[in-house]
Amino acid sequence: MTDRHSEGEESSLDATPAPTTTLDFLDDALAESDAAAFVHVGDRFDDDVRYLTRFSGPDRDYAFVYVADGPEGGVLCAPSRFEGQARREFGGEVRTANAGDPAGVRARAVLDDLTDGEAVLAPQSIPHDAAAYLERGGYDVTSTGAVAAARAVKTDAELDALRRVQRAAAGGMRRAETVLAEASPDGDELVWEGEPLSTERLRREVNAELAARGVTDAENTVVGAGPTCTDLHYRGTAAVRPGQTVLVDLSPRGPHGYYGDISRTYVVDSDGGWERRAYIAVESALDVALDTVEPGVPARTVHAEAAAELAAYGFDPEAAEGEAGFTHGTGHGVGLSLHEGPSLRGEAELRPGHAFTLEPGVYDPERGGVRLEELVVVTEAGVEILHEYPRSFAPRGE
Amino acid sequence: MTDRHSEGEESSLDATPAPTTTLDFLDDALAESDAAAFVHVGDRFDDDVRYLTRFSGPDRDYAFVYVADGPEGGVLCAPSRFEGQARREFGGEVRTANAGDPAGVRARAVLDDLTDGEAVLAPQSIPHDAAAYLERGGYDVTSTGAVAAARAVKTDAELDALRRVQRAAAGGMRRAETVLAEASPDGDELVWEGEPLSTERLRREVNAELAARGVTDAENTVVGAGPTCTDLHYRGTAAVRPGQTVLVDLSPRGPHGYYGDISRTYVVDSDGGWERRAYIAVESALDVALDTVEPGVPARTVHAEAAAELAAYGFDPEAAEGEAGFTHGTGHGVGLSLHEGPSLRGEAELRPGHAFTLEPGVYDPERGGVRLEELVVVTEAGVEILHEYPRSFAPRGE
Repeated sequence: MTDRHSEGEESSLDATPAPTTTLDFLDDALAESDAAAFVHVGDRFDDDVRYLTRFSGPDRDYAFVYVADGPEGGVLCAPSRFEGQARREFGGEVRTANAGDPAGVRARAVLDDLTDGEAVLAPQSIPHDAAAYLERGGYDVTSTGAVAAARAVKTDAELDALRRVQRAAAGGMRRAETVLAEASPDGDELVWEGEPLSTERLRREVNAELAARGVTDAENTVVGAGPTCTDLHYRGTAAVRPGQTVLVDLSPRGPHGYYGDISRTYVVDSDGGWERRAYIAVESALDVALDTVEPGVPARTVHAEAAAELAAYGFDPEAAEGEAGFTHGTGHGVGLSLHEGPSLRGEAELRPGHAFTLEPGVYDPERGGVRLEELVVVTEAGVEILHEYPRSFAPRGE
Repeated sequence: MTDRHSEGEESSLDATPAPTTTLDFLDDALAESDAAAFVHVGDRFDDDVRYLTRFSGPDRDYAFVYVADGPEGGVLCAPSRFEGQARREFGGEVRTANAGDPAGVRARAVLDDLTDGEAVLAPQSIPHDAAAYLERGGYDVTSTGAVAAARAVKTDAELDALRRVQRAAAGGMRRAETVLAEASPDGDELVWEGEPLSTERLRREVNAELAARGVTDAENTVVGAGPTCTDLHYRGTAAVRPGQTVLVDLSPRGPHGYYGDISRTYVVDSDGGWERRAYIAVESALDVALDTVEPGVPARTVHAEAAAELAAYGFDPEAAEGEAGFTHGTGHGVGLSLHEGPSLRGEAELRPGHAFTLEPGVYDPERGGVRLEELVVVTEAGVEILHEYPRSFAPRGE
């Protein structure tokens, strides 16, 4: 696998510093609601706390506290045995007092120390026990969506992180395409390296390629074949057969926590028919969606345009799960979470820095499914695909 | 990579059904506290909700409600577009009403429907907004540790899941050992396949092997060399040099959500000295810990015995992070979370079905670090290593 390591860009994934977070939006949120402080508590699986701290901590809760006119960058109550890592990764003040106490208790102690105010903002996902500790200490906790709103607009450094992981995702897709191109029809089977190809074998090949490129599959790799493409989150084992749609959807995560997201659909040895028509419709819907994206456009317009294009090709744009047609939305924001703002269902206007997927698809429970997906960012000029990867109905060999 | 796929056991990872959860412990918890229902809300990253439902849902909150004498297996308020998956994976009743409402609101509607009681139990990690929705509906929410307690004792099916992922983890370790055995000293470098070996290259090789075996590295793979071994969660890039300790700690996650956990430490071209002495001490501490484990032994005794053995070899058993000696605990429970009960720091007695790591280690910030780790389960007879993998100071070639 040496060739994989000779690609300079991938091998420097880890060497690039993590994006940083500017916390001015918290000052604005505090001023707007006349609150004294912002608090969040979470573990390494909480992407809000990762955004606020850039700390890739443990799977135990830790606390972030931000006080207006308090320590720049806020205060991180670091878990025991993670102090050194916290100091390397977090730009604010690291406190280690009472490391054995619950994170909510430690956050309360920081508030007691730094502010006389009582009004505290927190994301609605803050654990109930943490909020209860604050409330028992006399603080009023109010939910804020400020963190989610800030996260929806990406900085240049964040876009660079997204591009890097999307490039690795494209490498994984290249592997899938290569395996499919190498596979040979044998009756109703596709044979690859002497054995029948299954979604499980293909998924393992792709995930190994992602790992070799320094990103994790994040348990998100979906490989469907024929009818199993209809299951949008299929992770099982099914035979991959000639003439079937093979849908590959990769959402790996890079070392700084940003996700990529790309889908392609291939057919080996197609006889045309439904698969070909579906592909043409989906590709056309994707192009329409791309053409629609620009600053000022209501986000829902992007979905409406893609859906209308699929309808024009005769596919039901409002099908329910398990029915034939377009059974999901056109996209979702991508960043430190695989699904975050902006929503493409909402009235809000697209803004430069909004990064999201465009992924129209059509499905037929008896035939298969086709989805094509690009990861894009809204620019002043319109839209940019974060990493270009060719589209093809038939898999291309190396 | 065909050879990886010819191993029947790994390739059937996904075909094995997920373990199931018996919810009798919830009946006991409700009876004990005279509560009407148990509620939890979480997304796919919340391991409690996964344990309760076996639903590998989306990264948006969903709700689980369990009412005494209510639907067997409880009620899952399934997220939109996951209904089919919920019905396949969840053994209780799936409800899809008001799929657009917050999970806490949907849980409240189930309570309104199924019970006249007001007392509700929930894990302390339930999101604050969900608890607030319940409280506004007139329910009293009290924290319970019942789920964590149930999870700490594994069923046979759970032990089988742990064995399978640990076997894949051992395959990853075999890859690390093979690469190190193939590497050649060249001055102060180790050269592998024509290029200097780094922790990053070694980590990618290992993670690709894990992926090829059908498990994810779960962003947990730690590869340290020399001084970077002191950082217990090192994920950066450093040269791997002759004579240094190379510490490899793998904690992959299998398709049903269970983690493995194994550590080995190798030295290529050792001249003995600190590295050899540290290795002998750690291996001896591991053997002592293994000998200590049996039903009825207070968990903390295991740690105390391992620490005493390291002290007998002259290593400080109570060193702080960044100091020389034993800087962490002897182990942690492993299951659907990488860190869960039982604690090896507590007074509680070990019981059959407790599955945890044993991982003594010693570190010296200027020299390196040695850790050896086995994943074990307490049996009626004593202890079982869940998957045996050889220990070796010098890496063994293929």
